[in-house]
Amino acid sequence: MSDHEQAARDELARKTMPAGALGRLGALAVELAARQRTLAPRIGRVRLVVFAADHGISEAGVSAYPRAVTREMLHAFASGGAAACVLARAHDVEVEVVDVGVDVAADAVPPGIVVAKTRRGTARIDRAPAMTVAERDAAFAAGVAAVHRAGAVDAIAVGEMGIGNTTAAAALLAALTGAPSGSCVGRGTGIDDAGLARKRRAVDAALRRVAGIDEPGRLLAELGGLEIAAMTGAIAAAAAGARIVVVDGFIATVAALVAVRIDPEIRRHLVFAHRSAEAGHALALDALDAEPLLDLGLRLGEGTGAILAIPLLRAAAAVMREMATFDSAGVSDRTPA
Amino acid sequence: MSDHEQAARDELARKTMPAGALGRLGALAVELAARQRTLAPRIGRVRLVVFAADHGISEAGVSAYPRAVTREMLHAFASGGAAACVLARAHDVEVEVVDVGVDVAADAVPPGIVVAKTRRGTARIDRAPAMTVAERDAAFAAGVAAVHRAGAVDAIAVGEMGIGNTTAAAALLAALTGAPSGSCVGRGTGIDDAGLARKRRAVDAALRRVAGIDEPGRLLAELGGLEIAAMTGAIAAAAAGARIVVVDGFIATVAALVAVRIDPEIRRHLVFAHRSAEAGHALALDALDAEPLLDLGLRLGEGTGAILAIPLLRAAAAVMREMATFDSAGVSDRTPA
Repeated sequence: MSDHEQAARDELARKTMPAGALGRLGALAVELAARQRTLAPRIGRVRLVVFAADHGISEAGVSAYPRAVTREMLHAFASGGAAACVLARAHDVEVEVVDVGVDVAADAVPPGIVVAKTRRGTARIDRAPAMTVAERDAAFAAGVAAVHRAGAVDAIAVGEMGIGNTTAAAALLAALTGAPSGSCVGRGTGIDDAGLARKRRAVDAALRRVAGIDEPGRLLAELGGLEIAAMTGAIAAAAAGARIVVVDGFIATVAALVAVRIDPEIRRHLVFAHRSAEAGHALALDALDAEPLLDLGLRLGEGTGAILAIPLLRAAAAVMREMATFDSAGVSDRTPA
Repeated sequence: MSDHEQAARDELARKTMPAGALGRLGALAVELAARQRTLAPRIGRVRLVVFAADHGISEAGVSAYPRAVTREMLHAFASGGAAACVLARAHDVEVEVVDVGVDVAADAVPPGIVVAKTRRGTARIDRAPAMTVAERDAAFAAGVAAVHRAGAVDAIAVGEMGIGNTTAAAALLAALTGAPSGSCVGRGTGIDDAGLARKRRAVDAALRRVAGIDEPGRLLAELGGLEIAAMTGAIAAAAAGARIVVVDGFIATVAALVAVRIDPEIRRHLVFAHRSAEAGHALALDALDAEPLLDLGLRLGEGTGAILAIPLLRAAAAVMREMATFDSAGVSDRTPA
């Protein structure tokens, strides 16, 4: 335990409440204080970065929605009507959307969306590498750049959008953990039974293709997607800059797993926002020894779960910063046993 | 299902996301729209009312903290350093604290606390009725008056403070549901094993005393406490005024159970904020067929859990009010099967 963490625990114990009475919120308060190295932590400015990209595998009938939805959703983001935009306004969170590989010409991307793509969607991962190593590095760098653009924020939340990306994330999760593909593949946006069977076959084919590879960066290039590579870069950069990183759902958690496998030191900067209804999320969380704050049955992505957790971070920081201690308030502590 | 609820469900289905992708948040959005009878629900002004009172049974060694803490905490509330005050500031929630029976002279109550008490704490419920029927009615009326003072708020949250009140709530829960007292009695603020045994004996003695009584208002007077009676009044008044009522933890939920047993119509106005770590809460929630929004292991009371849930209500209302529809955004709906 760091000195900062010990000091934060001691301070929490002095607050006018029974030990542990704030449960997870108290633990979060200690975590934020330790990360920010202060007994007056603050989660003021927060930015959500949503990385969007398309997936070659979407041509294999693995999604309930057509590929065009990724592109169309860029417009919903640009106009502020997407779920993440609505929630971000409600909770005073900035949003930046970065196109790191949507299947649309750069000049057709709506204004307000950052364009940072080297290709328009990945290759079909059941047949070929999702992207080259150079393309992976470019997507990773796009994530790093987004964090640098954010500037002096207290927390960075990462989210994504991309038809077909639960398939890529499931393949990556299975390859990274060795878990059976069946427990990594879920219904995504709501695929039917026949589609789920196609999705499983696609993941199994991709896994056969990468058998023997275990280097996480290599698997990222092989299985994709471009937005997962970008999230990995954003998470690594935010952790390196000592920012709190708020991880959204299934796909963001898989990106966090890649980042932590590359550098375990990143783990302590991560706060997991919510438990997604998507099948593989529990497994990805277990692999990171993570217990999310919320469990609301969300399965939308876009960073929606991450935004919903931000008020809990702000509340936890306020408890550490502002709550009275037994001494300061003149409140009697526990009756001696 | 009401017309308003059906209209809200239809509107949610038009939003640019897969069906059910917002999970509990979507269901909450429908609930708020139905209660406010609009497709543009809003949770703007919110007031938490914290009812404080003492309990005769605290003299029986059922709490880890001395009785004086209830009085001392009035000062922590008055100075804004109590956990509920800190969280309320973080989440833009008004707080009113009402002393409905703290064991302190009215003129010694700190400024800023509303004084509305007919007695200084209840009688020992293992030996006598907690209060008379007239005193119960006065406490209930103090709850009603607090809601009237709140004026045009969109939601009322109810919380409490009172050393010994988990004992009263456990007795009331057991008497109302017929559940074994052992499953209703928990450690409260953290009583040790010997104290827990005393607490169980106290509850069992109280239950023997009220055997045969099943009228909820009568049980409320018999078992207390004054803050539970006041919360019951506040909940009933807020529901009657078509306000959303946000119910905090174990003790507030038991008050909600009393209110719903008196008038089942009240149930649909209630939103349950969080699942407390206190033993009997799960049972009280089951009796109300309630699934709370948060599960953070809180066991502090004061309305802290209710405040933490307010951003979720605001987010849910924003989704219904502001999120784009497939039509308005030009986003493709699901691929036809």
